[in-house]
Amino acid sequence: MFSITDLAEKAKKAANQVANLTAEQKRRALNAMANQLRLNQSDIISENKKDLEAAAQNNLSDAMIDRLMLDSERIESIAEALEQIAEQNDPVGETRHSYKLENGLQVKKLSIPLGVVAMIYESRPNVTADAAALCFKAGNTVILKGGKEAIHSNQAIGKALHAALNSENIDTGAIGIVTDPDRKHMAELLTLSHLVDLVIPRGGEGLIKYVSENSRIPVIQHFKGVCHLYIDSEADIAKAIAILLNGKVQRPGVCNALETLLINKDLSQQQKQQIANALQEQNVKIHACEKSMPLFKDATLATTEDYDAEYLAKEIAVKQVDSFEGAVEHIHQYSSNHTEVIITENRKKADRFIRVINASVVMVNASSRFSDGGQLGLGAEIGISTSKLHAYGPMGASSLTTEKFVVVGDGQIRN
Amino acid sequence: MFSITDLAEKAKKAANQVANLTAEQKRRALNAMANQLRLNQSDIISENKKDLEAAAQNNLSDAMIDRLMLDSERIESIAEALEQIAEQNDPVGETRHSYKLENGLQVKKLSIPLGVVAMIYESRPNVTADAAALCFKAGNTVILKGGKEAIHSNQAIGKALHAALNSENIDTGAIGIVTDPDRKHMAELLTLSHLVDLVIPRGGEGLIKYVSENSRIPVIQHFKGVCHLYIDSEADIAKAIAILLNGKVQRPGVCNALETLLINKDLSQQQKQQIANALQEQNVKIHACEKSMPLFKDATLATTEDYDAEYLAKEIAVKQVDSFEGAVEHIHQYSSNHTEVIITENRKKADRFIRVINASVVMVNASSRFSDGGQLGLGAEIGISTSKLHAYGPMGASSLTTEKFVVVGDGQIRN
Repeated sequence: MFSITDLAEKAKKAANQVANLTAEQKRRALNAMANQLRLNQSDIISENKKDLEAAAQNNLSDAMIDRLMLDSERIESIAEALEQIAEQNDPVGETRHSYKLENGLQVKKLSIPLGVVAMIYESRPNVTADAAALCFKAGNTVILKGGKEAIHSNQAIGKALHAALNSENIDTGAIGIVTDPDRKHMAELLTLSHLVDLVIPRGGEGLIKYVSENSRIPVIQHFKGVCHLYIDSEADIAKAIAILLNGKVQRPGVCNALETLLINKDLSQQQKQQIANALQEQNVKIHACEKSMPLFKDATLATTEDYDAEYLAKEIAVKQVDSFEGAVEHIHQYSSNHTEVIITENRKKADRFIRVINASVVMVNASSRFSDGGQLGLGAEIGISTSKLHAYGPMGASSLTTEKFVVVGDGQIRN
Repeated sequence: MFSITDLAEKAKKAANQVANLTAEQKRRALNAMANQLRLNQSDIISENKKDLEAAAQNNLSDAMIDRLMLDSERIESIAEALEQIAEQNDPVGETRHSYKLENGLQVKKLSIPLGVVAMIYESRPNVTADAAALCFKAGNTVILKGGKEAIHSNQAIGKALHAALNSENIDTGAIGIVTDPDRKHMAELLTLSHLVDLVIPRGGEGLIKYVSENSRIPVIQHFKGVCHLYIDSEADIAKAIAILLNGKVQRPGVCNALETLLINKDLSQQQKQQIANALQEQNVKIHACEKSMPLFKDATLATTEDYDAEYLAKEIAVKQVDSFEGAVEHIHQYSSNHTEVIITENRKKADRFIRVINASVVMVNASSRFSDGGQLGLGAEIGISTSKLHAYGPMGASSLTTEKFVVVGDGQIRN
């Protein structure tokens, strides 16, 4: 019978071996994982089909089914992400500060693994491989508790990863796959603070709330992404429209998609109309404030709930603001601390936006869709933290380490 | 009537002003705080007397009374700590990484304040000033919930700090002092996750457990310090004895004092006897393992509880280990992740100890008593984190910041 405490004990036991692997051993193992995913591609796809059939029977949404689906292209891109992680610098054993005190003590801070990480997530089976690889790269072992809708896919991916660990003589406890979807195991997991150092929930708001409120283990939260695009009076309108459409239409079901558009009232009527037309041509459903309402053929009046909403669909709230400050104020009130974007050609306003907006990712003249570990050069991401403790924003392997103090003396004592 | 939610709302309101103070404004305000502490010295000492009288009536231990007591020397040293913090580099607004992506996006990580920090602590009134100064330096506002045994001292210190803020036109909400010791306010505070970004409990195990188990706000824990000194077979015995006595006798009531001594069996009988005599000459109470028992005139047999104990007194557990590995194994089993020390002249063993021991502070040939923010050059400390998330080890001002991503483009969108 499956026991999550057993799995956590195995992860804890393997942690010492994984923490002490050399950079080269980790590189080899990660490349082996990528290869095993390719070798086991047909098995993974056929197991994924079982999940897709169940999803169809359970009437999961198209967005959910899209996230769930694996084909050879997607498996190849997972394998490539693993290879990219393999080639990154080892985040463990880095000396991050080093100084000598007057009494001759040599002090440094040295990066070390966190230990055992528990990842609790929904739908996307690629998270199984990404999270395993990032935790492993950082010298951690991991417990992967995926959603029941992806249970066959996750197990098939886990089997491939274990084959790679076996080929490199690494304890398979390093990557623990939860094979029983019963929710009671999650409740049990959250009590295991003597075995697990960190929990990362990734999924819907309900899941994250549940984990945050019930965990005895430190949690890094990734709540919803209510990302704002502010088009300043001094914006380049062509850039603004391209970034708006990229943020709202290209992949609306993800957390770095745009949810609210703020338009400066001093843009010309023609500019405003261009922006509005661009959205309507893409059949985006509009929730407009009173002042921006006349720009749209078809819009409903925006409510407070709209400004709070993460639509995850081709749907957007639009508000006209009187000034730069008005935009900042709106963002301060409604920000989810995920990603906030300004479009302006005025460097001073850009700098001020960067300074006063404390979202985890603040962008100038670039699409919110870049707010993603892979896009920002981290290889992949284990999540995007919207709480400020430990890590803030997209988390790669180095966010899965901590630093210890190392103090070397030659007999110093304290007065 | 006192309301902790009001206090937290004021701290939240002041957070924007404090986050945007310049390095120079913060430097001036911190120096003003130091001066106000000196100017108000007699008031602080007379308020402290009230706490000391109550402590005597309530039969608090000598260790507690020692922690509570303020005299002009101690106030001067608090003021000096504030001046040292004033002169440190500003931890806010630092660019910590910066790189350009192939698509031209300029990415950097920029240090920012956490926001509002709640400090919950017992006895020592110097924490009121230290914590206020460190939070302020990092651009945070703070809520200071001291113990009821220090309520008069803390308020007097708070008054001095507020006088400094007023003189610099800074919202006094920046440093919120809890003026009603009723425990119900702590329970209320721990629910205010919309106002407070971080809770740091500092005090007895009971307090820290209570806060960890009841907080809706992220907590940085500082559990007990069960610090080990391992005297290797290749130790310099004079250094070993000096460091042992410094760690156990100089100030036994603090968390960086030693609690367990591990002696390598391959030391000569004479060396072992020297070590044992040094402890007994200082009247340290001994809990010895069977093998080390004959070294002592007067010792009780060490139990598992002894190896787990934080005595905070002139009392120590002593165990003879068969090898370096035996010492590491014992430390792995009983470490509180605070501070672990090896005494050896063998560089390889020192390096191996540094690598395999993942306590927050790992020391070679130096006293555990240096495991302290002030001693390690941080100016002061807000606590010593023994959990790995966010910060590990002594926490100074820079541990009270986080990093946001800043991404600057010129119209980039995602494919």
